[in-house]
Amino acid sequence: MTTTDTARDLHGEVVHFLARQTHLMDGRDFEGFAATFTEDGEFSHTPGQLAATRAGIVAELVEFHRRFDDDPVVRRHWFNMVVLDPGEGGSWRATYYAYTVNTRPGGDQRIGPSCLVTDVLVRVGDELLTRSRHVRQDRLHFD
Amino acid sequence: MTTTDTARDLHGEVVHFLARQTHLMDGRDFEGFAATFTEDGEFSHTPGQLAATRAGIVAELVEFHRRFDDDPVVRRHWFNMVVLDPGEGGSWRATYYAYTVNTRPGGDQRIGPSCLVTDVLVRVGDELLTRSRHVRQDRLHFD
Amino acid sequence: MTTTDTARDLHGEVVHFLARQTHLMDGRDFEGFAATFTEDGEFSHTPGQLAATRAGIVAELVEFHRRFDDDPVVRRHWFNMVVLDPGEGGSWRATYYAYTVNTRPGGDQRIGPSCLVTDVLVRVGDELLTRSRHVRQDRLHFD
Repeated sequence: MTTTDTARDLHGEVVHFLARQTHLMDGRDFEGFAATFTEDGEFSHTPGQLAATRAGIVAELVEFHRRFDDDPVVRRHWFNMVVLDPGEGGSWRATYYAYTVNTRPGGDQRIGPSCLVTDVLVRVGDELLTRSRHVRQDRLHFD
Repeated sequence: MTTTDTARDLHGEVVHFLARQTHLMDGRDFEGFAATFTEDGEFSHTPGQLAATRAGIVAELVEFHRRFDDDPVVRRHWFNMVVLDPGEGGSWRATYYAYTVNTRPGGDQRIGPSCLVTDVLVRVGDELLTRSRHVRQDRLHFD
Repeated sequence: MTTTDTARDLHGEVVHFLARQTHLMDGRDFEGFAATFTEDGEFSHTPGQLAATRAGIVAELVEFHRRFDDDPVVRRHWFNMVVLDPGEGGSWRATYYAYTVNTRPGGDQRIGPSCLVTDVLVRVGDELLTRSRHVRQDRLHFD
């Protein structure tokens, strides 16, 4: 980030950035989603799993979504309560709450697992990019 | 919008504008809600249905809410993941996720259908107004 | 607030402030949470109950959370649809929707009661503080 970035200025921009990411993910535009990460970006949505680089993130998402091949569902990621803290080297850490809202044929919409997400965001040129994302489901607190 | 509007500047203002609309709608101030649309505004919440003009939007909302005459419920619209894209003639398109949270006597709160909403927003003088709103329930993807 | 605060400028800052409060509350850092209130701050989450002063708010939260001593749960407060209106003496009133998302061992996440929250916010020096918070559950509309 530039030295002029402050959490106060940045919050709306980050919320907007996260919104655009969810629309890409939920629209299954995995290439577009991965392009919002740095080239060496990291994405972990499950303990022990870590996808690295944009190509690696795309591959992971394609693999992950195979489970929906025979399970038609509209998935929407909801993020909320985004807290920003300055990180190293001008980066920012965004910590926020998340769940999915899943709609299946003939069924009601259901909310998926509640999660805490921790991102490291950097500014490259004029745009925000995600350097890393770690998702932790709340139910894992009890394991 | 003025030429100085950018998505970065506008995002918080749009989120606030949408919040105020939901409070008007959920408080059943349909006149107040319709006044947040342009005079010739359009509002479609169901495929094949389209209300036009502020008076038409009020009439549609009065008619729609008749279903709750014998079904007391506190309804709250939750919008999230708002993405802004520039549209024609200085307008902006806001695309976002939505559901209602419905509380009935003696029952738990329940979440209503997950939706994708697409608005066209314009600035008239100093204020934002909705020129059109189209709501699409996710479960219609399976029809 | 200073005379230069406008709802347009303030909205993102308030949303961020509320997010940080929820992380403190949900992390059960009650001292940290209470420190986001003015020294004489008030917090009412149930009709007839009112905690006052930071020490009083901490005591109330400790007491309230005793119910979870034998009921392990990850709680997350979700706030949304934040509307700001100018109040007396440079204060701002924030009115918004809220629920908790509760995850228990072996169970799915569940959404808690839908609420309307009304805060009075003031700026002290450079920071926002909550002067008062009143939470009203929607199901009380039917009592």
